[in-house]
Amino acid sequence: MAHLYETDGQAIYRQSFATIRAEADLAPFSSDEEPVVVRMIHAAGLVGLEEHVRFTPGMATVARKALQAGAPILCDARMVSEGITRRRLPMDNAVICTLQDPQVPELAKAMSNTRSAAALELWRPHLKGAIVAIGNAPTALFHLLNMLEDPKCPRPAAIIGCPVGFVGAAESKAALMAATPAPALIVDGRLGGSAITVAAVNALASAEE
Amino acid sequence: MAHLYETDGQAIYRQSFATIRAEADLAPFSSDEEPVVVRMIHAAGLVGLEEHVRFTPGMATVARKALQAGAPILCDARMVSEGITRRRLPMDNAVICTLQDPQVPELAKAMSNTRSAAALELWRPHLKGAIVAIGNAPTALFHLLNMLEDPKCPRPAAIIGCPVGFVGAAESKAALMAATPAPALIVDGRLGGSAITVAAVNALASAEE
Repeated sequence: MAHLYETDGQAIYRQSFATIRAEADLAPFSSDEEPVVVRMIHAAGLVGLEEHVRFTPGMATVARKALQAGAPILCDARMVSEGITRRRLPMDNAVICTLQDPQVPELAKAMSNTRSAAALELWRPHLKGAIVAIGNAPTALFHLLNMLEDPKCPRPAAIIGCPVGFVGAAESKAALMAATPAPALIVDGRLGGSAITVAAVNALASAEE
Repeated sequence: MAHLYETDGQAIYRQSFATIRAEADLAPFSSDEEPVVVRMIHAAGLVGLEEHVRFTPGMATVARKALQAGAPILCDARMVSEGITRRRLPMDNAVICTLQDPQVPELAKAMSNTRSAAALELWRPHLKGAIVAIGNAPTALFHLLNMLEDPKCPRPAAIIGCPVGFVGAAESKAALMAATPAPALIVDGRLGGSAITVAAVNALASAEE
């Protein structure tokens, strides 16, 4: 017997977001932040994620404006850049991931760092006013913070810092919030990842649910 | 002051997996399953995920053998296909995602279903003996189950069924385990997603940690 299920994509989104809004504690978030958190919970399939989501004041507004002005989106991993829904981008914004650039393996060796961190050196020409979306590697977020300690390094408009895992993830995100070289959004602790990061970008890019 | 952090990728993996093995309850899993579960926990940043991971008996062994024999990997989303580490694949296995095929939007309209489900119709020529990796859309998993109700539909070697979310995810995974048209691995309930699915494929593809 054939399985029966909801096949209307819009109805699935509507029902999912209604469930999240019924179950999650979204009261601490501003109306500008709330749809971002809802989409992050949706991507993770995890009510309770909201307890770990932190915005610096005004980050959601700043990031939206930057995207509407055409800011490029700099991603640490292909799973992030591939997940961003192109038709949601308000200005056909560039989505850039430099991890597969042929220069990166040599650069990583020279820097004694991971390829994920080395790839950020190739962000420099695009970094000014960009939206940074780090959803995988703590080493990438740490290296960005070190790059931004140089006052001559161009400043991004906002940083979505959601690396995931057991070594450096919690520490790099805490360091981002302590330094705040740009308006920032994190998931504190071990949780994070490409899907959650993509969800944040997609929510900031368009108000459409 | 520059942030100091672990920059050796291999050391990061080693330390992460040691933490997971110290904290997670992996006793219910066979030695063939255990490294798969460890990598799934790693991708999610979530000890406790193991309580939701279910294998049909022998699935891990069957999936490994199929990959070693050159089975293609069929993915429901680009975030899944892009995440699979090519150098871990034992036979330079094909990694296929049909979601962006230009036929899909028309097909979805004709089927009154999502693009994710419609894309699976284009899997038919590759399905025999393949590894299926569904990490996003419950509708894709439901449609696969319906396709496999036809005895003339080619059988995959194994199914990694880890769609995520609030509508249909739990139900489609329960339906997979009830029907078991092929050896299967799921994360039950709402949790799942592309990163967890990719982690399972990467662990089954190679014993390297």
